Amino acid sequence: MPTYKAPVDDALFLLKDVFHIERYGNLPGFADATPDLIEAVLREAAKLSEDVLTPLNRVGDTEGCTRHPDGSVTTPKGFKEAFKQVVEGGWIGISVPEEFGGQGLPATLTETVNEFLCSANMAFAMYPGLTQGAIAAMLVHASQELKAKYLPKMVAGTWTGTMNLTEPHCGTDLGLLRAKAVKQSDGSYKISGTKIFISAGEHDMSENIIHLVLARIEGAPMGTKGISLFVVPKIMVGDDGSLGARNGVSCGSLEEKMGIHGNSTCVMNYDGATGWLIGEENRGLNAMFVMMNEARLGVGIQGLAQSEVAYQNAVIYTKERLQGRAITGAKYPDKAADPIIVHPDVRRTLMTIKAFNEAARALVIWAGLKSDVAHRSGDDKERQSADDVLGLLTPVIKGVLTDLGFANTVSAQQLWGGHGYIAENGMEQFVRDARIAQIYEGANGIQALDLVGRKLGKDGGRALMAFLGELGAFVKEKSADEKMKPFVTPLGVAAGHLQQASMWFMQNAMAKPDNTGAGATDYMHLFGLVALGFMWCRIVEASLEKLPGANGQAAFYNAKLTTARFFMDRMLPETATRLARIQAGSASTMELPDEAF
Amino acid sequence: MPTYKAPVDDALFLLKDVFHIERYGNLPGFADATPDLIEAVLREAAKLSEDVLTPLNRVGDTEGCTRHPDGSVTTPKGFKEAFKQVVEGGWIGISVPEEFGGQGLPATLTETVNEFLCSANMAFAMYPGLTQGAIAAMLVHASQELKAKYLPKMVAGTWTGTMNLTEPHCGTDLGLLRAKAVKQSDGSYKISGTKIFISAGEHDMSENIIHLVLARIEGAPMGTKGISLFVVPKIMVGDDGSLGARNGVSCGSLEEKMGIHGNSTCVMNYDGATGWLIGEENRGLNAMFVMMNEARLGVGIQGLAQSEVAYQNAVIYTKERLQGRAITGAKYPDKAADPIIVHPDVRRTLMTIKAFNEAARALVIWAGLKSDVAHRSGDDKERQSADDVLGLLTPVIKGVLTDLGFANTVSAQQLWGGHGYIAENGMEQFVRDARIAQIYEGANGIQALDLVGRKLGKDGGRALMAFLGELGAFVKEKSADEKMKPFVTPLGVAAGHLQQASMWFMQNAMAKPDNTGAGATDYMHLFGLVALGFMWCRIVEASLEKLPGANGQAAFYNAKLTTARFFMDRMLPETATRLARIQAGSASTMELPDEAF
Repeated sequence: MPTYKAPVDDALFLLKDVFHIERYGNLPGFADATPDLIEAVLREAAKLSEDVLTPLNRVGDTEGCTRHPDGSVTTPKGFKEAFKQVVEGGWIGISVPEEFGGQGLPATLTETVNEFLCSANMAFAMYPGLTQGAIAAMLVHASQELKAKYLPKMVAGTWTGTMNLTEPHCGTDLGLLRAKAVKQSDGSYKISGTKIFISAGEHDMSENIIHLVLARIEGAPMGTKGISLFVVPKIMVGDDGSLGARNGVSCGSLEEKMGIHGNSTCVMNYDGATGWLIGEENRGLNAMFVMMNEARLGVGIQGLAQSEVAYQNAVIYTKERLQGRAITGAKYPDKAADPIIVHPDVRRTLMTIKAFNEAARALVIWAGLKSDVAHRSGDDKERQSADDVLGLLTPVIKGVLTDLGFANTVSAQQLWGGHGYIAENGMEQFVRDARIAQIYEGANGIQALDLVGRKLGKDGGRALMAFLGELGAFVKEKSADEKMKPFVTPLGVAAGHLQQASMWFMQNAMAKPDNTGAGATDYMHLFGLVALGFMWCRIVEASLEKLPGANGQAAFYNAKLTTARFFMDRMLPETATRLARIQAGSASTMELPDEAF
Repeated sequence: MPTYKAPVDDALFLLKDVFHIERYGNLPGFADATPDLIEAVLREAAKLSEDVLTPLNRVGDTEGCTRHPDGSVTTPKGFKEAFKQVVEGGWIGISVPEEFGGQGLPATLTETVNEFLCSANMAFAMYPGLTQGAIAAMLVHASQELKAKYLPKMVAGTWTGTMNLTEPHCGTDLGLLRAKAVKQSDGSYKISGTKIFISAGEHDMSENIIHLVLARIEGAPMGTKGISLFVVPKIMVGDDGSLGARNGVSCGSLEEKMGIHGNSTCVMNYDGATGWLIGEENRGLNAMFVMMNEARLGVGIQGLAQSEVAYQNAVIYTKERLQGRAITGAKYPDKAADPIIVHPDVRRTLMTIKAFNEAARALVIWAGLKSDVAHRSGDDKERQSADDVLGLLTPVIKGVLTDLGFANTVSAQQLWGGHGYIAENGMEQFVRDARIAQIYEGANGIQALDLVGRKLGKDGGRALMAFLGELGAFVKEKSADEKMKPFVTPLGVAAGHLQQASMWFMQNAMAKPDNTGAGATDYMHLFGLVALGFMWCRIVEASLEKLPGANGQAAFYNAKLTTARFFMDRMLPETATRLARIQAGSASTMELPDEAF
């Protein structure tokens, strides 16, 4: 049975020593986030994750969800009780404004807590996670009346949320959407249509479920410019907040999936269900994007989270499993054989995952802070600049953290040999669960296109310049430091590759637009490597600062330096290959006629 | 429901036009393998795979195997009848010498047939596949008496075979093996112990099951030098070949696994079971290696096979699924949207898989021919040289074809978006099934160590010199050809990287043995890329020869040229990163103390 220990100390090191969260004290909510409070919150989240959610992870996988003939859905044994603890702990609303019952703490903190919850039990964590996404969309775009009616209960977790985009024939291309909305005389709408892949669409853990639904108002234009967003409660809510009759929405069936069996993935049927418009007519995608951007960061975190828990269980096994002797001579001569962690190829695997996890965690926190600044700063320019960088980082975090996170679950499983393929050991569940994160919330190919097709060129490339500017200034400053130089020098080379690739797109995309698409995924991964490399340099900077007075903690900081070195030695050089692929252009990619496939 | 069409034409092109199988006419069995016969065999194998085995693939996955209280095992519905067809078609013995009931045809042909069977139904194909492996080991090492008793029935498929190496506490390190053998006065042995992960260990498809079992004879030395190999039938066999009493071997339980549910993975209990020695006492590993090398090629083929079938189903979906418009303007303006195959990132994914599949198929056939020469040639030097190259190619084919094969099943699933995550569409089964191929028959890290630790340095590096010699001569000769130059030039660069990496190991492994282990996996993949690149150049050579008179077939050869170009543009450049990683050495990989993980 897999175990999990939340990396609280690593998160605290990042928040305090690497990113100096205290420097953001002027942002609303940050003053309350004292070092003591942050630590208390994380330790409490760790306890919930380790003691309550981890033991339910395999239960959820083997039991799955069950739909009954009346359309109701039962979640796996223990999920309901665990959700009650999430609700009682106030976990859903820790970063939601206090006026809606939240605690108003930094969003960064929610991201870190969510990593723990997702490591412990990804299928479970999706229920509160989707609720947070729905809250975020409503906060920005819903009317004051809708907010007052729904948000307090959602923040409390008494009600949960969902997002309804996909239909059988359309996912990526929402312009093809068919669900329709007919305006009623009272200002509400009747929503009809079928939505698929609706996570947490129906379950037994909350009193009500609040669906955010994309649909086309009768007479609206075709394509994406005729889509509106609606809030559709499962059970009608009276003006006093009391629950009334069932609305015309129900779960038609559950999907049988490769993983995340503990989460109910529903086909939702809307049969003239009553809904209310969120935001403006025909501007639904805009409103949904708030939720989607939030969700994309959340999904990136799932990639990291599965990588982390798979790593932890691989470490345990490689220290226990005795097989062969170290090539340099027995390391544990008193045992029948050495534990396999002595072997260089095993250690290479562990180091690769470790070097990803720790930098990815930093990247998530960095992006979280950008998000907090973008949403809370009083300075327009500061807000704009943070939002620019966040816009770049969102597809990178979603795409790269889930691609590498998945690859790492596979590597961790590999270290278990044949035992990793056996269901009861739990390693293969991490692989199956992690796999979805590459697919949903915009498949990773779409993330890459969002990055190169929308984010790169926007506002004359202002965002990329901001990112490279911040990174370049850091490299320049630290190059003068002998101890930092071995780390920032390769980062400078990699950033140069990113710059060359960006330039190549600028010069070659106009004449041949396919060049962008053909290089998009490589560009996203090149960007991800540079971003992770930047994070390692920030971690090294903090570690070097802390080392002189570290005493008992020196091993922690020294391990950071070694892991950073491994990243620079072994992982960052891949940027050269990514660049070469991009510069190869699209000719051989696009040349074959369709029938040659 | 996934479909499958065996790539008969591609295999015929490789056998005839690329590798000129007719030039091997002097080898025993090859004279019978006329072009017509080869085509007939492959078309028949295609029919079996497409019509009989493909429809059973999902049945096998959902139903799995069932163990009954008496230890017997029932295979999924339809498997028994399908196996009867395999038996009746004589498929198990097509390359086995005629004296044991086989057809004596080239082993190369068996490899190609096995690709088809594995694409159609990997879990099923393991039953005949393991039988072939057991036959191979017995052919080389068993006494004439044992051969006469067992082989004809195994070749006919009336009895099947297994290999029993792994025990709960040991897999890779067979030196820790505990199963024991006690010699009896009649020359037989009593075998006792527990073996795990025994594929096809018990089932209902054959009259008897012939287990090849590693065990330690009482009093034998500890470690790998005290291990012997035994044949242990499930049911005792009389001198006249008649079946007698049950032997003391039984299936204790079935493993619940991530995939290949249709194959019974057994815990086998040996309780004083009667067995007979194969080969010499304490030389069991030697004998087992014949089976293992055979099996490793077979497992590499599984990687290719899953990649191929996943690709085919991804192609179908990307031509059907309408979503978005080509960036260069609508390609199918009469449809609501373009099929997603128009998008460069989708096409990049398909091209990557296609460029692997076709070169991997060539590599398997090339290795198959090396194997045929190594086993059948009358010329000592020729046999030796073929065996040398085969020794290098075996871990590369096992490791690289299963790593990339798995990655390709994941990419193919990705093209299906959310629908790829749904069980009934079958794409996720390819991923789960392909996953085992990286693990069993020596996890891929072990393959890499076999390559760099054993094969590279053996006989003063003679094998590598033979491989690079053959490749180098080809590059040199073809560089003068303007049409070949764009292909052999990048191959020459990549081969240079391989040479530099090999040299680096020679210069740096003695002083620091961990350098070899730390770079092993990268070296294996670097080798794989070079080998696949070599195959592409061979394919290009044949395509250029055929093109002038190709007429209606020109599209086939032109597609080869484009796909080769894609490989050179996009896939081969990775050798640079692999080399950089190797040359980074083991310092940062090995520096952390165990407790830092």
